[in-house]
Amino acid sequence: MQSEVKSLNEECGIFGVWGTPDAARLTYIGLFALQHRGQEGAGITVNHDGELRTKRGFGLLTDVFDSPNAVANLDGDAAIGHVRYSTAGSNLLENIQPLPFNFSDTQFALAHNGNLTNAISIRKQLEDRGAIYHSSSDTENLMHLIRLSQAPDLDGQVKEALNIIKGGFAYLIITKDRLYAALDPNGFRPLVVGQLPNGAYVVCSETCALDAVGAKFKFDVQPGQLIKIDDTGITIDQYTDDTQLSICSMEFIYFARPDSDIYGVNVHSARKRMGAMLAKEQPADADIVTGVPNSSLSAAMGYAEAAGLPYEMGLVKNQYSARTFIEPTQELREQGVNMKLSAVKGVVKGKRVVLVDDSIVRGTTSRRIVKLLKDAGAASVHLRIASPPLRYPCFYGIDIQHASELIAANHSIEEMRQIFDADSLGFLSVDSLIKAVNLKTNAPNKGLCVAYFDGKYPTPLYDYQKEYDRDQAQLHAAKMR
Amino acid sequence: MQSEVKSLNEECGIFGVWGTPDAARLTYIGLFALQHRGQEGAGITVNHDGELRTKRGFGLLTDVFDSPNAVANLDGDAAIGHVRYSTAGSNLLENIQPLPFNFSDTQFALAHNGNLTNAISIRKQLEDRGAIYHSSSDTENLMHLIRLSQAPDLDGQVKEALNIIKGGFAYLIITKDRLYAALDPNGFRPLVVGQLPNGAYVVCSETCALDAVGAKFKFDVQPGQLIKIDDTGITIDQYTDDTQLSICSMEFIYFARPDSDIYGVNVHSARKRMGAMLAKEQPADADIVTGVPNSSLSAAMGYAEAAGLPYEMGLVKNQYSARTFIEPTQELREQGVNMKLSAVKGVVKGKRVVLVDDSIVRGTTSRRIVKLLKDAGAASVHLRIASPPLRYPCFYGIDIQHASELIAANHSIEEMRQIFDADSLGFLSVDSLIKAVNLKTNAPNKGLCVAYFDGKYPTPLYDYQKEYDRDQAQLHAAKMR
Amino acid sequence: MQSEVKSLNEECGIFGVWGTPDAARLTYIGLFALQHRGQEGAGITVNHDGELRTKRGFGLLTDVFDSPNAVANLDGDAAIGHVRYSTAGSNLLENIQPLPFNFSDTQFALAHNGNLTNAISIRKQLEDRGAIYHSSSDTENLMHLIRLSQAPDLDGQVKEALNIIKGGFAYLIITKDRLYAALDPNGFRPLVVGQLPNGAYVVCSETCALDAVGAKFKFDVQPGQLIKIDDTGITIDQYTDDTQLSICSMEFIYFARPDSDIYGVNVHSARKRMGAMLAKEQPADADIVTGVPNSSLSAAMGYAEAAGLPYEMGLVKNQYSARTFIEPTQELREQGVNMKLSAVKGVVKGKRVVLVDDSIVRGTTSRRIVKLLKDAGAASVHLRIASPPLRYPCFYGIDIQHASELIAANHSIEEMRQIFDADSLGFLSVDSLIKAVNLKTNAPNKGLCVAYFDGKYPTPLYDYQKEYDRDQAQLHAAKMR
Amino acid sequence: MQSEVKSLNEECGIFGVWGTPDAARLTYIGLFALQHRGQEGAGITVNHDGELRTKRGFGLLTDVFDSPNAVANLDGDAAIGHVRYSTAGSNLLENIQPLPFNFSDTQFALAHNGNLTNAISIRKQLEDRGAIYHSSSDTENLMHLIRLSQAPDLDGQVKEALNIIKGGFAYLIITKDRLYAALDPNGFRPLVVGQLPNGAYVVCSETCALDAVGAKFKFDVQPGQLIKIDDTGITIDQYTDDTQLSICSMEFIYFARPDSDIYGVNVHSARKRMGAMLAKEQPADADIVTGVPNSSLSAAMGYAEAAGLPYEMGLVKNQYSARTFIEPTQELREQGVNMKLSAVKGVVKGKRVVLVDDSIVRGTTSRRIVKLLKDAGAASVHLRIASPPLRYPCFYGIDIQHASELIAANHSIEEMRQIFDADSLGFLSVDSLIKAVNLKTNAPNKGLCVAYFDGKYPTPLYDYQKEYDRDQAQLHAAKMR
Repeated sequence: MQSEVKSLNEECGIFGVWGTPDAARLTYIGLFALQHRGQEGAGITVNHDGELRTKRGFGLLTDVFDSPNAVANLDGDAAIGHVRYSTAGSNLLENIQPLPFNFSDTQFALAHNGNLTNAISIRKQLEDRGAIYHSSSDTENLMHLIRLSQAPDLDGQVKEALNIIKGGFAYLIITKDRLYAALDPNGFRPLVVGQLPNGAYVVCSETCALDAVGAKFKFDVQPGQLIKIDDTGITIDQYTDDTQLSICSMEFIYFARPDSDIYGVNVHSARKRMGAMLAKEQPADADIVTGVPNSSLSAAMGYAEAAGLPYEMGLVKNQYSARTFIEPTQELREQGVNMKLSAVKGVVKGKRVVLVDDSIVRGTTSRRIVKLLKDAGAASVHLRIASPPLRYPCFYGIDIQHASELIAANHSIEEMRQIFDADSLGFLSVDSLIKAVNLKTNAPNKGLCVAYFDGKYPTPLYDYQKEYDRDQAQLHAAKMR
Repeated sequence: MQSEVKSLNEECGIFGVWGTPDAARLTYIGLFALQHRGQEGAGITVNHDGELRTKRGFGLLTDVFDSPNAVANLDGDAAIGHVRYSTAGSNLLENIQPLPFNFSDTQFALAHNGNLTNAISIRKQLEDRGAIYHSSSDTENLMHLIRLSQAPDLDGQVKEALNIIKGGFAYLIITKDRLYAALDPNGFRPLVVGQLPNGAYVVCSETCALDAVGAKFKFDVQPGQLIKIDDTGITIDQYTDDTQLSICSMEFIYFARPDSDIYGVNVHSARKRMGAMLAKEQPADADIVTGVPNSSLSAAMGYAEAAGLPYEMGLVKNQYSARTFIEPTQELREQGVNMKLSAVKGVVKGKRVVLVDDSIVRGTTSRRIVKLLKDAGAASVHLRIASPPLRYPCFYGIDIQHASELIAANHSIEEMRQIFDADSLGFLSVDSLIKAVNLKTNAPNKGLCVAYFDGKYPTPLYDYQKEYDRDQAQLHAAKMR
Repeated sequence: MQSEVKSLNEECGIFGVWGTPDAARLTYIGLFALQHRGQEGAGITVNHDGELRTKRGFGLLTDVFDSPNAVANLDGDAAIGHVRYSTAGSNLLENIQPLPFNFSDTQFALAHNGNLTNAISIRKQLEDRGAIYHSSSDTENLMHLIRLSQAPDLDGQVKEALNIIKGGFAYLIITKDRLYAALDPNGFRPLVVGQLPNGAYVVCSETCALDAVGAKFKFDVQPGQLIKIDDTGITIDQYTDDTQLSICSMEFIYFARPDSDIYGVNVHSARKRMGAMLAKEQPADADIVTGVPNSSLSAAMGYAEAAGLPYEMGLVKNQYSARTFIEPTQELREQGVNMKLSAVKGVVKGKRVVLVDDSIVRGTTSRRIVKLLKDAGAASVHLRIASPPLRYPCFYGIDIQHASELIAANHSIEEMRQIFDADSLGFLSVDSLIKAVNLKTNAPNKGLCVAYFDGKYPTPLYDYQKEYDRDQAQLHAAKMR
Repeated sequence: MQSEVKSLNEECGIFGVWGTPDAARLTYIGLFALQHRGQEGAGITVNHDGELRTKRGFGLLTDVFDSPNAVANLDGDAAIGHVRYSTAGSNLLENIQPLPFNFSDTQFALAHNGNLTNAISIRKQLEDRGAIYHSSSDTENLMHLIRLSQAPDLDGQVKEALNIIKGGFAYLIITKDRLYAALDPNGFRPLVVGQLPNGAYVVCSETCALDAVGAKFKFDVQPGQLIKIDDTGITIDQYTDDTQLSICSMEFIYFARPDSDIYGVNVHSARKRMGAMLAKEQPADADIVTGVPNSSLSAAMGYAEAAGLPYEMGLVKNQYSARTFIEPTQELREQGVNMKLSAVKGVVKGKRVVLVDDSIVRGTTSRRIVKLLKDAGAASVHLRIASPPLRYPCFYGIDIQHASELIAANHSIEEMRQIFDADSLGFLSVDSLIKAVNLKTNAPNKGLCVAYFDGKYPTPLYDYQKEYDRDQAQLHAAKMR
């Protein structure tokens, strides 16, 4: 399912390129392939003969760049870009990235995917020393730290700054003469490097953006790496050796595009395997299998294949639903008005349906989809979730900050089944998830972060620890009642 | 595939409702479900206590109604609406429908899906008598004919006017006290009636719009019918008995949404059957089957099931591609830049792929998709088209007016295979198409218009006959050379 | 004072040119000089190699043509344009002029300043014969009448049509090969012809527009004339000989720009003479004379000069007041908040002030200005109006349709003085007005229409007669009470 | 004349209010009266229950606040606002004021009229210590200096910061609980305090804004003062005692509105006296006197009165000229096309005209206006300038930074007369200017800054000294050649 429906949001997609004509257009095209990672803001900074120019605004990429000239005006040979879903940082233009910084003698622009866990304490400390922040975004901290660093050169300053910030982050930094890319020590977020036919390097969140711009995949950026690209080529460095891969498992489950590969694993195929394992763990006595479009279709195919059941188009999603300002009233909604999803009566009528969804956050949409199928005549609906129950918040870049928002943190599986009015309900186990993704690494959980499922965070929580403890205590108290 | 890619465009979707609060919002929601039928203009006319108010503009529905108030301002209990792809009538606001007409003592608004074949001669005749046309659209003729009719009441005037116009048309007419819906004598375009829980009647192009607004399907409007809905209920009348069903087969093949039913036949299921029959008629020695998203997925599933091959996600379509002002340059395009479709390497690499598409018009995209799959590593690509070769123009509402635009009118199947660089190419036969749709009627071709495939038009061509003859002669001459 | 403040509005300014490069830009510049004649809509139709293209919209010229390209896109050698204040015809885009008409084989566009008195009955008659009107504007009638005329050529058709319409009108008509200009038989509205250095002819409402475009004044169009301009030059014809000049005296009093000449009389100079005669008829015991900016300054100078008193800047008008969306609340207004006019304390404090205004319509602003001066410390305010009391409606193109709106129709001069809280109040006599303007003609009232002052309309009122009788009866009854 | 025509621009108008409902609307109205001080950007910051919200944008106030809601959305009891003409700081939204600053625990917004002379060196110094600037505007320096101050409370921090910056400045600072207003030690820019009927204090650039909002004038802010307004009332303090009044004489000559009083002197009356003294110093053998609208009208009246000549309306300015995107082409301009000014032929024809202008900067418009009058038939044109020749740049807030731009710095009076094609040319002397303004003070030049006329700057030039020396050397060298 798509972000407007599921209340689970990735904060960002990032894209950068150095050394190719029409860099802003290429960045637009790359970001267009990453639009699923953020729909609330977008921006591009171009390097025009050493001068940085930024255009950014609210909404989809097509809202911000709303005429053919909008990109053509950003002439230059290098660029970075960003699509954004807001987590930290409220709804101000100043928070839309790339964040541009103009000094008397130089310029910077920053784009960031992730969430810093010690942003609040760094900001407080620096403001006490006279610093002025442009934005309310955690991203800006890195710029202040770079400028305050006493290291002798920019490479050293950037490294020093990266060692101070904590959490999940993939950063792009562009200056008049170079492009940096940096990944946090756990590699929570994906970041890949590719190369255009003309030799120019591209760095971006997902391989689907490499494909979109015609770039060849070169390598996945590793935890703790600092990449520098300039007119002399590419340099790979480590700003820290204290690293351990724990990439966000939700990238495989829901966020990433099915055609992307992450650390060599194709996302669609991983999802198909999740679906297949789900069929083994949570079989159902049914006639057909259908998925919630679009993100659950791969898992549904895998389930159908493994279960030996027909894979069907039981639900249709309106292709134009990315933007509408007009919503049904509550009254209309109750009368069955639905602008985004429709059940295909001719397919589901009289059938026992396995409905595969990728994950459940608040559970509000699950209930609506089950109803949609039953109203269309489904004989029974067996809801199968191709991931484990989401029970803990994430502090590394996914927009769930309180367990209280998560239905699985508050209810048993049987309670959820009743709430959704499903005939049966089953989730994938954490072990099967790890096996389905199957990263080639010896890191714990085979390199996956599964903290939202088991609560075992791979790093300290810093500024969030108190809030987390309070949240857990409340949850515990609620369950006692 | 979607209209931006395939140069094959339906002109319109229409929606009307009488006797329910918030009629404009409901019409918006209905049109939103019909947006696939026209993306270049949209409008709504509301009846506010007997006064008609119209808002219309260029672009998607969300462009025209670009704020929550845009619909809220159209307060009233009845409304008609229109989404438009332009055929006849150039790019002027005056041509966006509904067309509003204000007389000293009354008002009308018209919305129309289809194409009139005698519009030019009617207009010339009326202008010679002093008539002034607002628009360059063929739709307006009906209004003039109604006003010039000497029949004693409006019912009679509308019927008289409907008997003068020729071609394919589904019309909605709203006045201060009623809503008319009329279908041409061949029923070239779909038109259905439904009913809301509160009893109000809805009339619209496809059943998917009924589902979207929570209305129950009542009946398909029949060729030659004139429906009247007012505060006393619904009246079904015939303005002519000289009728014979020949609904556009492209509605089943490509235009209509998979969740719609037309004359009782579910579109997705019909497409699945086309795919299955295609597998029998045009088998291929392959490993996987994949469809061109979104319109060919049903046929691809049917092909895979019938062929006993795995159905796979070999191509991914960018969900945000409905609107972008920025395009790759020709240079970038040649470097493999693609903003709308991506091949999933992890799926197709090394595989012999059956690629199912619903139809081929100009053939330009077919070539690009075959290349996309081969670049992603497909061992071979067997292109299968779930409809017969398009060889003749349409004059009843599809935007193909010259055979010279159609690749299949100009090339043999083997020539096309070479042009597309496919390893093999096969089309569905006309007979199988008719069997797959399988309408319950004794009309010729089981009620389907297949003139684009066989050139046998079910009506005279009137104003288009000369142009058609010239076009065919040119084609013939070209082949002789 | 300016139209936003005084509720007295001219409907239109018109401008046309034939045979010069960049005709739309010239028309824009001409209309810009006529903007004071209408601020609610504007449009330009250009003739591009025989094809007519129209751009029109709501608001000021600068709102409609809101980018440098807006005019550049209208490429062509001939054009007509219009600025509009709405009288007849409600607030619809369709009513913004020029009104474009597209026939199968030809095109027209019409621009009109004035008001037809038999528009309603013509429309009713034509609609009964099947005619469809685009707009609710009275302007459109002429087009229908031209098309319905049986005269053998266009010249004859236009003349026939002009003889059917009644009231005040200056019309411009552009076609693929000519430009017509026509004036009503009374010449209610001004219309002049000029010539550019390159020989091209210009026709427009006021000579200030000729000056703005660098054209030399040639002649005033006479009542009943039909001018034709085409590639062969200019032709002057009469469509009727039953004419008698009675140009609207409000053009001299208030509407026209001070730098314009009408029938050889400079408007500023005429106003100065009105002021001078007012000083003789209505002297005042005072220290200084000040005018209400901007339209009353000429009369105030004349008054000061004749009275031998210093002319002073006692009031200042905000230069930016043409457009603001933000208004003071009623509460703020009562606290003395004023966004448009300020009194200059340093000038008026302790002084006995003669305040000259050009005319009084509803009287609401007069009261406010007297208060403004007194709050600024004026010892006394002697209000002098450089025109007679407005007591009757106008049906020839000024937006006063009911005597009940006119304070002077409802109150004696002493009552008005008390309402305005002025220390004295005096108006100019009708005789002095006629003498001050002093047109060189033997027509009654020396060619001026003074019907708003004396109720003697120079033509029948046609469709308005009943309404006028009712209005006068009400007024009479109100006075009886 | 108005700023679009004369290349002489004030940077700003500022307005602040504390403790009244609907503070943003009042600020809008106040800024509307100050719009003549800056047309390129505008903004308002409102204090909504202690939270600051800012809306700002490019263009006129009516462009930024382009709907009734635009101000209504800024709900609060205190506000500051700014209209801007850019000097220092390029064309970026970040430079539009008020500049908002958000700290973790507090907020500020700054609005500034003037120009700092040591901004560049302060910025460099602070950036070297790690500071990051939001804008390229000199205004921002104050915020950094306040935050870096070690003073124990905000009052002290603000004072410390004000003592570091140099140049001409009137600052408004709003926080959650107070409003500061500060004036530079020379009082280069005007700043006044008034009080609303409800007791709330207003501080703004000119008294015309007090009149506009219905506030009573209380006092002129004195050089070196720091005013604090909060819920307990108003506090007047000095941040330095090293002060000496030298207010910009161009405020009296050209910038300020005629209805404003500065240090007790009415601007219109001062201009009238300049005109009268000019008549004595530079008499002319002429028939009439006319001024260039609007800023020279007062001086023209004074000249006419003193010379005993009739004051006439020889030039008319288009009231709508504040905004147009369409300009005459160079070709049209040469044909006499003029969109902003017209000569009144009926007035000037055959007359010997004294043309009074307030000042001459580049001289381009003077030449055009003389030509306009002669083309309209003036027998001779005697150009009289109601101020001394502008020969030196200004560094305190007027946009002339190079003497090379000034025609009077490069040419003798006779040379200028020839360039303008005037029959005679005369300027006011510096002594008469000082006498005409006649401020009640013992400061040098009676408290006026006349450095643009005599080159004697009342303060060191700091960062501008080098540039000034280079400019003067070039000028000297050019004259030697």
